[in-house]
Amino acid sequence: MWIRPVAALALVVAAPGFAQGQAAAPVAAPSSAPSPAQIVAAAPAADWVAIAADQLLVMDLAPGRDRAARRVVIQLLPAPWSQGWVGNIRKLAAAHWWDGTAINRVQDGYVVQWGDPFAEDKARARALPAGLQSVPQSAYTLAAGAAPRLEGPRLTDGIYAASGRFYQGWPIAAGSGASPETWPVHCYGTVGVGRDMPPDSGTGAELYAVIGDAPRQLDRNIAVVGRVISGMEWLSSLPRGKGEMGFYRQGKERTPIVRVRLGSEVPGLPMWQYLSTSSDSFARYVDARANRRDPFYIRPAGGVDICNAPVPIRPKP
Amino acid sequence: MWIRPVAALALVVAAPGFAQGQAAAPVAAPSSAPSPAQIVAAAPAADWVAIAADQLLVMDLAPGRDRAARRVVIQLLPAPWSQGWVGNIRKLAAAHWWDGTAINRVQDGYVVQWGDPFAEDKARARALPAGLQSVPQSAYTLAAGAAPRLEGPRLTDGIYAASGRFYQGWPIAAGSGASPETWPVHCYGTVGVGRDMPPDSGTGAELYAVIGDAPRQLDRNIAVVGRVISGMEWLSSLPRGKGEMGFYRQGKERTPIVRVRLGSEVPGLPMWQYLSTSSDSFARYVDARANRRDPFYIRPAGGVDICNAPVPIRPKP
Repeated sequence: MWIRPVAALALVVAAPGFAQGQAAAPVAAPSSAPSPAQIVAAAPAADWVAIAADQLLVMDLAPGRDRAARRVVIQLLPAPWSQGWVGNIRKLAAAHWWDGTAINRVQDGYVVQWGDPFAEDKARARALPAGLQSVPQSAYTLAAGAAPRLEGPRLTDGIYAASGRFYQGWPIAAGSGASPETWPVHCYGTVGVGRDMPPDSGTGAELYAVIGDAPRQLDRNIAVVGRVISGMEWLSSLPRGKGEMGFYRQGKERTPIVRVRLGSEVPGLPMWQYLSTSSDSFARYVDARANRRDPFYIRPAGGVDICNAPVPIRPKP
Repeated sequence: MWIRPVAALALVVAAPGFAQGQAAAPVAAPSSAPSPAQIVAAAPAADWVAIAADQLLVMDLAPGRDRAARRVVIQLLPAPWSQGWVGNIRKLAAAHWWDGTAINRVQDGYVVQWGDPFAEDKARARALPAGLQSVPQSAYTLAAGAAPRLEGPRLTDGIYAASGRFYQGWPIAAGSGASPETWPVHCYGTVGVGRDMPPDSGTGAELYAVIGDAPRQLDRNIAVVGRVISGMEWLSSLPRGKGEMGFYRQGKERTPIVRVRLGSEVPGLPMWQYLSTSSDSFARYVDARANRRDPFYIRPAGGVDICNAPVPIRPKP
């Protein structure tokens, strides 16, 4: 029995970072059917893909009152989407540009945002490193002809896109038409590039992470560049800002960022891996997310939205 | 200009508790178009409906380290959905049953859960008040014939239901067919009834609030009984539990609940009001959530899911 005593009153087992899928009819099912988490746990080692250290951005926040270390690990979006901004982020990390910056905004149910608190004050703003690109609005999407072939289960995603699929472990939406646009989507934990009004004004120095319901209205309006794969709780549990849009009103409320480094620069960093989105295990996981047949459920939904089928990620066993 | 200096790098203005809609084509629009928040701010007083104090559940948590009061205000779901459980919750509050219980579980991106920490230990469990109902599984939904007429914009909600509409300020999903089922949906901030495996095992003594992406797979599987309308940040920013499913491992990690009362028992409680979901203002708000034409946006989504169009709620001005 996978429900522990006190947990029995507790809804569903849902391993962190997981969620649901698409497929069969919503019928009640044998109580021996595996849960999504059980399918993931049973996936063979060959279905897991290592995440290279140079694809990671490691952000160390100043310790909280309990003195515990607060490390947030972000996986950067792979080519070919958003690579202009991702390249800027690599340069900013290499320059140690974020060291001494802060988390400046926490808006409940929406985003946590970090960067230079004085970015808007010319006299105090931190200079950006040389060589950052100005990335055009057109880079928010890629024509299907310019994008690699998507893989894994095809989700309906009917409201925000014609369909949703996956690429190397990432959820990607696709529009309709003969050669539709494709774009990375905003889900819980997604990291994106804050910008001013001009669509090309975001460099990557100002970043945010989603801490609420998937804000899909941001898709194709802001650049998605990554996702939090470890330490999400250090962002999502921060005190909310009381200023407009969740900005902190006082400097002392901000959480200092001690350092941000590319994973390849961090000695002793653990390895992570994702469940291959072209694997049979992943297809079964998504199907089980869409049609919960494990014992707690009585009415499988018969579908799942792409943000509710998060790609399983785990530390390398 | 509604973007303040430091906020300029900050994505969108989204008033707390708001989100988006459905309707016109996704075309770029004049930069003078109002934002959803501006539409709400301009709604006439007649479009706002008072929430009666006896529809509120007021939960006072023990103060945190900064000694600040932590009050969470929950609006209970109106008849006719889930009223067996809502009736139990009224009895539990009248009996002051939750006083001295605790928040026992915080699972990142999913739920915060509270109730008797010793519910599973017969020797220590707190006795329930007399007269609680055992509510059957069938009460998770209502046939359209048994439900009042829904109102407001009709959203597609294509993955989890045939459509989504509203009733007296609440999002309600509807299935397909001649007399479809209707049910209240799980969104960010939704409050529901924890249960054990048997679908009728939840009394209302064990409650949870959603703190992540809308877990729509829970619809029709657990009873929705309310939503947090004030103090959501006191739940969503709690430290995450390190045990299975986010349960705290040690008793001292739990947040004590000082008291829970019906709003009608709380002296001096402020009043809240919701934007009538049958009003023209609400229809325009939802349309603007679905088709962002305010200056920040370059690509309106052309649609919105029901959890991304949260009904505006505000303190009575």
